[in-house]
Parts: sequence; C-alpha cells; structure tokens
Amino acid sequence: MNLHETLSEIAADMAARTDRGQPADYIPELAAVNPAQFGISICLADGTQLSAGDSATPFSIQSVSKVFALAIALGRLGDQLWTRVRREPSGLAFNSILQLESEGGIPRNPFVNAGAIVTTDAALGQRPPKEYLAELLTFLRTAAADEDIHIDRAVARSETETGHRNFALAHFLKAHGNLTNPPDHVLGAYFHQCAVTMSVNQLARAGRFLAGLQHLIAPERARRINALMLTCGHYDGSGEFAFRVGLPGKSGVGGGILAIAPGRASIAVWSPGLNPQGNSQLGTEALEMLARRTGWSVFG
Amino acid sequence: MNLHETLSEIAADMAARTDRGQPADYIPELAAVNPAQFGISICLADGTQLSAGDSATPFSIQSVSKVFALAIALGRLGDQLWTRVRREPSGLAFNSILQLESEGGIPRNPFVNAGAIVTTDAALGQRPPKEYLAELLTFLRTAAADEDIHIDRAVARSETETGHRNFALAHFLKAHGNLTNPPDHVLGAYFHQCAVTMSVNQLARAGRFLAGLQHLIAPERARRINALMLTCGHYDGSGEFAFRVGLPGKSGVGGGILAIAPGRASIAVWSPGLNPQGNSQLGTEALEMLARRTGWSVFG
Amino acid sequence: MNLHETLSEIAADMAARTDRGQPADYIPELAAVNPAQFGISICLADGTQLSAGDSATPFSIQSVSKVFALAIALGRLGDQLWTRVRREPSGLAFNSILQLESEGGIPRNPFVNAGAIVTTDAALGQRPPKEYLAELLTFLRTAAADEDIHIDRAVARSETETGHRNFALAHFLKAHGNLTNPPDHVLGAYFHQCAVTMSVNQLARAGRFLAGLQHLIAPERARRINALMLTCGHYDGSGEFAFRVGLPGKSGVGGGILAIAPGRASIAVWSPGLNPQGNSQLGTEALEMLARRTGWSVFG
Amino acid sequence: MNLHETLSEIAADMAARTDRGQPADYIPELAAVNPAQFGISICLADGTQLSAGDSATPFSIQSVSKVFALAIALGRLGDQLWTRVRREPSGLAFNSILQLESEGGIPRNPFVNAGAIVTTDAALGQRPPKEYLAELLTFLRTAAADEDIHIDRAVARSETETGHRNFALAHFLKAHGNLTNPPDHVLGAYFHQCAVTMSVNQLARAGRFLAGLQHLIAPERARRINALMLTCGHYDGSGEFAFRVGLPGKSGVGGGILAIAPGRASIAVWSPGLNPQGNSQLGTEALEMLARRTGWSVFG
Repeated sequence: MNLHETLSEIAADMAARTDRGQPADYIPELAAVNPAQFGISICLADGTQLSAGDSATPFSIQSVSKVFALAIALGRLGDQLWTRVRREPSGLAFNSILQLESEGGIPRNPFVNAGAIVTTDAALGQRPPKEYLAELLTFLRTAAADEDIHIDRAVARSETETGHRNFALAHFLKAHGNLTNPPDHVLGAYFHQCAVTMSVNQLARAGRFLAGLQHLIAPERARRINALMLTCGHYDGSGEFAFRVGLPGKSGVGGGILAIAPGRASIAVWSPGLNPQGNSQLGTEALEMLARRTGWSVFG
Repeated sequence: MNLHETLSEIAADMAARTDRGQPADYIPELAAVNPAQFGISICLADGTQLSAGDSATPFSIQSVSKVFALAIALGRLGDQLWTRVRREPSGLAFNSILQLESEGGIPRNPFVNAGAIVTTDAALGQRPPKEYLAELLTFLRTAAADEDIHIDRAVARSETETGHRNFALAHFLKAHGNLTNPPDHVLGAYFHQCAVTMSVNQLARAGRFLAGLQHLIAPERARRINALMLTCGHYDGSGEFAFRVGLPGKSGVGGGILAIAPGRASIAVWSPGLNPQGNSQLGTEALEMLARRTGWSVFG
Repeated sequence: MNLHETLSEIAADMAARTDRGQPADYIPELAAVNPAQFGISICLADGTQLSAGDSATPFSIQSVSKVFALAIALGRLGDQLWTRVRREPSGLAFNSILQLESEGGIPRNPFVNAGAIVTTDAALGQRPPKEYLAELLTFLRTAAADEDIHIDRAVARSETETGHRNFALAHFLKAHGNLTNPPDHVLGAYFHQCAVTMSVNQLARAGRFLAGLQHLIAPERARRINALMLTCGHYDGSGEFAFRVGLPGKSGVGGGILAIAPGRASIAVWSPGLNPQGNSQLGTEALEMLARRTGWSVFG
Repeated sequence: MNLHETLSEIAADMAARTDRGQPADYIPELAAVNPAQFGISICLADGTQLSAGDSATPFSIQSVSKVFALAIALGRLGDQLWTRVRREPSGLAFNSILQLESEGGIPRNPFVNAGAIVTTDAALGQRPPKEYLAELLTFLRTAAADEDIHIDRAVARSETETGHRNFALAHFLKAHGNLTNPPDHVLGAYFHQCAVTMSVNQLARAGRFLAGLQHLIAPERARRINALMLTCGHYDGSGEFAFRVGLPGKSGVGGGILAIAPGRASIAVWSPGLNPQGNSQLGTEALEMLARRTGWSVFG
C-alpha cells in the first residue's frame, strides 16, 4: 500500500460526497464555515508527514482541546484527578446533566462536557485563566512545532454568550463541591481553550506524543489517555467509532477529529459537517477508510 | 522478559492475596466454589501455550459465553443483527432494564444481559434450543481443540429457578417485539449457554480466533468483536478495564475473563472472587500486571 | 341546577363529539368495542341514582378494578401493605419499570401496574386465585347491589397472551422479593381482576362506599383511598385531572372512570376512546363539565 | 369539638416532642433559628382567627412564596403560563434537574424549583425585579391585612452566594429558551421572593383567598392552585401528605406550611425542623392531628 496515494484517494472520495452532514450552527462563527471542506494529515513513526485536501486551513478545535487539557491537568495533579472525574463511558450525550445528578457531581469521564469543565478547573489550579491559556498554547506549539497557533477570541465570546448549558453544568458541579474556582472563571478558561484554532497539519503533529512518536508526557500516561479516547472520545457514538474505525479518537464540534494509531501514526481529519451524534461525518468516514486500508485498527 | 517466569510470578502473587473479592452467591453451584483458586493460561502466535495456577480446573464461564454466542449469531444473521442490538457502552449495570424502556426495547450492546438475550434469540433462530446448544458446543470444542467441554445442567437449572430479572428482561424485549422466540424458550437456551464449563486452558485456546491466531470467522468480524469487548465487555467497569489493562476482554460472573492481545495472544484468567462491578477481582489484577510487563496494551 | 338536566346535556354534548380519542387496541376484545358510546351514572347521598347515555352497557373495567383490589388487600393486611408499596405519584407512565429498578422493587403507589400487581399479590395471600376472584366478585356485587357482575374470560385470556410487559414487571418484583406468589399465579389473578365487566350504573353504585354513602370499609380507609385516587389515579395525567376535574378518580383502559365527590356522590363515566395518557377522553371531559356545573370539586 | 382547645392541645403536644427533625442549614440565617419553636394559626369562614404557640414569630417563608408568585404570574399571563410549565407531580426531589433534561426544559409544575423559577420569570415580565418584589409585598400585605411584612435581605444574599443548584436550573432553562430574563436577573427576584418573612398569624390570613374566604383572584383560579398544592405542594412527599393530611398544602424549607380547607379555613403552621423530604416535621404532624379532629380532609 502506498499511503500517499491512499490519502489522495480518500480526499478525492470525500470531495465528491454530497451528504456531508450539518455544520454546528449554535454560534455564528461555526455556522459561517464553508461545509465543502475536507482535510487530512498523518504523522508517521519515521518522522514524515503526509497531508491531503484542506490541510492548512485553520478550524476551531473545540472539544479536541479536552485531550490537551487532560494532559496538562494530569501533569499538575497526577492520579488525584481521578477522585474528581471517573473513567467510564457515560452512555449519554456530551452535554447531559443526568448522571451528574444521580452520581453526586462526579462526571463519568474527562471528555463529556461536565468532566472537561472539572479537568479545566484542575488544570487551572489557583492561577489566573490567562496563565493556564498561555501554558496550553505553549504545549500545543511545542507539540506541533509551530508557533502559529492561536485562540479565536470571537469564538470564545460567542460561546460565553450562548453557553447556558455549560453554565448549568458548572454551577451544578460547584453545588456538589467539585469546582475549586468560581463557575464563571472556569468557563472563561474553558471557552477560550475550546476556541483554539489549528489546521490538520498542526493537529496531527500535536498528537504525536499520544502515538508515542514524541516524548512530552510519560508513556504510561499517553497510553491511558488513548484508552479514554477510545472508550469515551465520541460521547454516545464512542462504541460505534471503535467498532467502525478501531482507533482512539477525539472529536470536536468544529468538525475536527484527532485519531491515534499507537506506535504508528498520529492522524488529524477535518470536515465541518456533523453526523447526528455531533461528530464530523466525513471525518469519521475518512478514518474508517484509512483504518481499513492500513490495517491500523488496534483490534487486529 | 521471560513470559513463563512472568506467569509464575503472577500466579504466586495472586496466591498470596487475602483480599480476593466475593464469589457470586445467587445460585448454590457458584456459591460453593472454593474462592482460593486462581488460574491463568496464554496461547501465543507461535502456537505455544503457557499456563500457571489452577489452569485445568473447570469453572462456569457464564457471560464469557456471550462472545461465542455473538460469533454464532453474526454467522447466521450478519449485519442484520445490528438492527436489533446496538454497539454502544450502556453506562449501566449488566442487568439494568432502564435503557431498554427509554430506548424502545433495543439493547445497547450484545454483552449487557438484554443484548445477550437478543443475541441468543438470533443465534437460536427457529431451531429447537437443543440444536443451538449443540452448535455452540461444537464451536467451542473446535476452537479449543478439546472435546471435553460440557454444559453443567445443575447450574442451568438453578439459573432458571432464580433468574427472575432475566425473565423480566426477556418479557420486556418480547413486549417490544425484539424476540422471535417465546421468552421461556430463549431463556432456556441462554441459561444453558451460560452454564458451559471450561478451564482457562480450554478458554485461552477457544479465544485464539479473536486474536487472529486461528481462522474460524472473518478477520473483520473478529476485529469488531474485539472492539465490542473493549468498549462493553465489563459493563459499567469497561472504561476502567480499558484504562488499567488496555486489552479487549469479556468477564463472567463465575470469575473467568477472556482477554485478547490482537495478533499476539489469547489469554484466559479465572478466580472466583468478584469486585463490586461483578468482574473477577484477581483476574483483573493479574491481567493488569501481565499487560504492564508484556507491553501488550493496544494503546501503545 | 337540575342535575338530571345537566346529565342529559352532558350526554348530548358527548354524543355530538367527533374527536373521541382512540380505543385501546392491544387485545381484540377491546379493539372491537364501538367507540361511539358514552354513558354516565351518579349515585347521590339521598340514595337516588341518575344516569344518561349507554349507562347499562357492560364494559371491561380494567384498572378501575385496582381500587377494589386495594380495598380488599387493605382489609387483609392493613397498613402492612405500605411496606411493599408507597403512596406517591410516580411521575411516569402506568407501565413503567424505571422507578422499580432505581427504588429497589418497591412500586410508587398501588395504581401503577407494578403497584397493582403487588396489591393483588397481597389480596391473594396464600389462597388459590379462584378464591380471591370469588371474594372480589362478592365485594363488587354487594357494593353494587347487583348479582349480574362477571369476569370476561376471553379478555383475561387475551391479556395473558399479550401482557409481556406485565410479566416483565412481575418477574422484576419477584427478583426483588416483593411477590409472595409465583409471577404467573399473581398475573392470572390480576388479568382476571382487570377483566371484570360492569356498566356505569353498576360501577357508580359500587363506588358509593368511597363517597361515604355506603359502609363497607372504615371511613378513614375510604378517605385514604380517595387521596390515592386523586394523586395517582390517572398515572402521569393525575395532576392534570386534579387541575381540571378536582375529584378523586380512577381510570381504566377500557374507557371507564370512577370519580368520587366525598359525602356527595359516586360517579361513573364510560367512553372507549382514550386520550394520549391512556384515560377516557370523553369521560374526562364529561367529568370536567359535571364538576364545573355542580361545584363538586374538592378544591373549593 | 372546640377548635380553640384543639389548637392548644396540638401546640402542647408539639412542645413536648423531642424528635423535631433538622432545620435547614445550608445558609447561616436558617441554621441559626431555634428549633424548639412551633406556631399554628387558623382563619375561619366566619372571619375569626385562632392561634397557638409561637404564632407571632416571623420566619422565612421560602417556598411557600411560590403560591403567591403563581397567583401573580397567572394574573399577568393567564393560561399562557401553562405552555411553559406543566401541572403534574414530578415524582422527584424539589431541586432535581433530571426531568428538565428529558422533557425539553418544561418543568413539571410551578412548585418544583425549576417551575418556580419559570413562574417568577413570568411574574417578573419585563419589569425590574424591584417592581415585581414591590407587587409581591403589596399582594401579601393586602391578603394578610398587615403592612408589617418584609424581605430579609441577608437571607436573600446568602441564597445568592450558595444557590449554585438554582443557578444551574436557571441556566438550563435559559438554554432551552424557557426564561425571558437573564438567569441572574430572575434568580435575584426569586431569592428575594423566598426571603419574605412572615408569622403564622400573617400567613394564615394571607392564604384566605385560596380557601374562598377573601376575594383576591377568580374562584376558579384559587381552586386550581389548591389542586396543584395538593398534588405537587410537598415535592416527592406530596402523595404522603395527601394520604395523611388530606388538604392542599405548600411547605417551605424555613419550616412553614400553608394548608387550605376549601370553604372552611386557611391554616398556617411553623416549626423549623424538617423531615427527610424537606418539609416541616412537626408542622406536618400538627396538620395531620388537626385534620383528623376537625374532619376537614377534602377526601371525606
């Protein structure tokens, strides 16, 4: 198999699709994105990077940022984080508040919104949000080996204005004593973290440490983040993604997905249209094709 | 690393444990099992098999049987099965009836009890239960290359007498039109399927087809069963198992666990004491030790 | 106000309605009932009885029977019954199994199906079902002062064949130790109890003891049954019924409703078409008109 | 029966109780209240008022205020309010967020916290909170014929600081488009409304319009508020209260309960200790004794 050709074929196939899903429209910045875009990029163990499609176009990484926030929070708190958030699939939508009520304010995992808010609170510590965001950008720029990674403040502002459900989650966590900072404070950091803008070229490089191709955190920790991505990275579509793609992955509502083939590759795809579970429709299909052709599934 | 030594050390370590969990006690046959037992066996890609501890002692495989029933059901129905059962972690206990009500009688996955009952109904088809059970035994004996695999009828009878919750699930499925056979009929087959008795020596061999070490079903299908085992194989402890062990696995209330290292090994462990999620306590810990020492985690 | 005229007007108004709801169709016997029927009957404190419409036509009382089963169960067990079933509105549909799971097999109240099955089990005691059913008929015939009240065995048989959801509830209760008899046994009694056939003339008379117009049980007990009818008698439509009608009432899927104006009247209405909550549509509207004109609401 | 003597006996009985429940302690102002207090007052149809115990001591009416807010909201919006809040018992705790998620942001009734927040938002309209609170005080002073009714601003401030769960509910309602005002705005009004301070003497008089002893709102509307109080006034203890007391009632976490005997009496009781459902323990018992002795139960 010629991987370069495979990527070209996948990009061509995706360009021809008419059923591309629906881009997120809850804030103007996401609704305005041209849905006819698709990009893919792969970093390999030998240090090479292959890309196809709109691979240099920046997009809002949104929930993909939760992976990096988790790495930072674990760096600060270590396993203590797991007293505040669990490691189980929720079986529910990303923004559900149900389990939080019946399970005493301890979110199921760090990738559902409630768990990500707790994770950001932990990563934040007692610092001003600005300092945490600076650390996050430094982490991303180092991982991607690219200084040109920024936060889109218009996106963050729009999220702040419309994110009532996230405010509900944060206040609920606070009511259960599972936030150390004031809700507004944590959400300020959280919305800015989600508003990071990257291209698939940058994102694939930034994910290399999870594939074991770059040393930024302990291998044991990377392994465990991969496990969480596989069981929880696509919310109530995680089982389906594991079944079809067979790789740890984390999606964002901006249409990006970071997928990891441990020891082999870090893969980023992007296409703005979402499937009913809120994950990139073409991104998922492209990864399914890629996994089938490469045999990179972790399941054999 | 010397794998043989590793197994001996694990078996010795487990023999010394005092906190062994609690064996299942809802039927006399399971309650009567001596909790001070532990066995482990591994089949490798080179065809060798290594074992330690009580590796030849037969035990009730219980829910581990769901993996084999799924292989048979997929063989008969193919992807049509997925119209009757989904592929998502449930986030709930193995015998929960909650989601079944809110999700119209379609179980979350083939490993929660409701999904396994649907799977057995599909594997059963229009045949008498006896024929299905004969096929199951043939499948297991072929896979394990051992004719000495049987059904413990006393166990099946005890389950029939006390399995009110499974009767509730089956009637609920019937009420939603998701059983083709009468509930009593399906449960007869299901209770006998769960009452299969095997040793870890036999079980490790029987799992080789999932690790790609033996050809019994299409590789694509084995891969997908592994994905389901990883996301759903330990019920509401699946995320934790993936986080700690990093291998697809399926546990049974008799204390057995079948774990798969794709392309490398089929592993069976057994110890009767269960942790609070209902999975073998020492079995889980032994697998965690093994995965750490071998580096077999699928996550890097 | 001339009550006789009021009844005539209500009957005429109901006869003219075109939107009559949908009769239950899950068993052939109920599906075959002519939906264009309506009957109403009222027993007053002075001993008189007024009727209009199809007041002598027998219909399947179904869940209205739960009120009489409760009276018999309380007569046998007294307040001990309340250790097995609570007295709170469920907030859920009549046949929901959700709360039963999260609340340890103790149904919310005696009128949701699960609670009614427990109540029948209690009323049954260690007797053969036949004896309980004989007592129930004697109770109804005495209360109604009419020997011509019977059980429709074809209806009971159809319920037995299609009542998978009730079987699920009964097995679930058994799994939680909240049935003393075998599930099939209790359901046999339950389905026959629900298959009692009465006319509104008979049903209005049979309800007099709840209105305090006939002494069959302690007044304190009648008062409490009325309280349960008001808060729980119409399942997840109970609040709405209290809001609109303002009288304790118990509905059945056969289209009958028994309503009580304490100290004043026992009222029975019947019309086979059901509203979305499963309560008689015209029956509810007729009771709302009657309550408005008579000022019989218990709420002032 | 001599009602005056009955009240004295009830007050004496309550004074002797040692098991008085636990006062609310989530804000310092409520935790500081002496639990050894009890007061009762009754306004009768003939215009007389009887009181016993600590009947002139002001206490925080808390959720009892929801009844008056509902009367004001209905006065402004009429039946349009019912498009935003339902009229069914929730079957859940007063501050649960569960149903709100599964039922699209429409609260079950105006007395659970979520429904009360919607009701206050409706009562508020486009006015500054100050104007709404002025109207509320005017309503209460007119109803009680007493100018000496005030808002305890320290209580309101404490609620604002600790009311994270109410903030969560409000943001959740906003996310579903069921608040016209900003969450902070509505909660400002809501916390001040709950911080009204009254004695049972004042509260009993203020409730006369619901008993039909004073004309402030249409009788039909008072009747319906009574129905809601009976089915939903004590949250997940409403069925129990109806069963034991048999009167429409609304409790508050400050230990007050307003109960209505339609056409006969408006009754206020107060004792700070709460039962496990969060309703005044001695208040409930006093009302049960009163209802038994007077025969005022609406159920016969």
